[in-house]
Amino acid sequence: MYLFLGMMYKSPSIGHEVSAVFHGVDTSLLKDNKRLQQILIDVLKADEFTILGETHFDFKPQGFTILVMLAESHASVHTYPEYNSLYFQVYSCRGPKDGKRVFDLFKEKINPKKVAFKERAITVGK
Amino acid sequence: MYLFLGMMYKSPSIGHEVSAVFHGVDTSLLKDNKRLQQILIDVLKADEFTILGETHFDFKPQGFTILVMLAESHASVHTYPEYNSLYFQVYSCRGPKDGKRVFDLFKEKINPKKVAFKERAITVGK
Repeated sequence: MYLFLGMMYKSPSIGHEVSAVFHGVDTSLLKDNKRLQQILIDVLKADEFTILGETHFDFKPQGFTILVMLAESHASVHTYPEYNSLYFQVYSCRGPKDGKRVFDLFKEKINPKKVAFKERAITVGK
Repeated sequence: MYLFLGMMYKSPSIGHEVSAVFHGVDTSLLKDNKRLQQILIDVLKADEFTILGETHFDFKPQGFTILVMLAESHASVHTYPEYNSLYFQVYSCRGPKDGKRVFDLFKEKINPKKVAFKERAITVGK
């Protein structure tokens, strides 16, 4: 994707996606959608992502989805209070191996008992 | 995540994510953000996903991101006209192996020369 910063900007041809399911999350945090939203926004900013917008949805009786539009692609969180778990994902087109820092920051705030972590390169160019 | 449909609804413990980079996409289509948005919405509806919201961004001078909030998780598209490519992703919590039909419908409309396809299970429960 392009950002126009006074000159032509070409996205690196290789991006990176980090995703994880956090198990054993504290129930009160899992049901505090506003706090989860704030944590996600804070850690993205702390890792110097540029937030262009977001949309979120509070499910009834519980459950939360937030999608964050980044200049560098996107991030998402889905909660599953019925399983004491949440899904965290960030796709960054800043370059190879990106996304680990924001994951670490998020994990520190959520403090899960167990994490199923995955990452992969996404090659958009030749 | 939960939907309240007159009774307690429990999300299946295993969801599925399909993602793909489409290479060799027609340039005029890659720059037609409104058409890409409509195609994505149409194929999600055709595969009976429930669209709860969306946010999109038109980058300058080119490039497009759209994030679609689904009752069944989320979908996203990012375009890279500088590489004649786009990224398509859908995460569905409807159950194992879901997402292939909407991918096929999307691919048929986009008609890329080559596709790098990936899929994986996402286990949120025990």
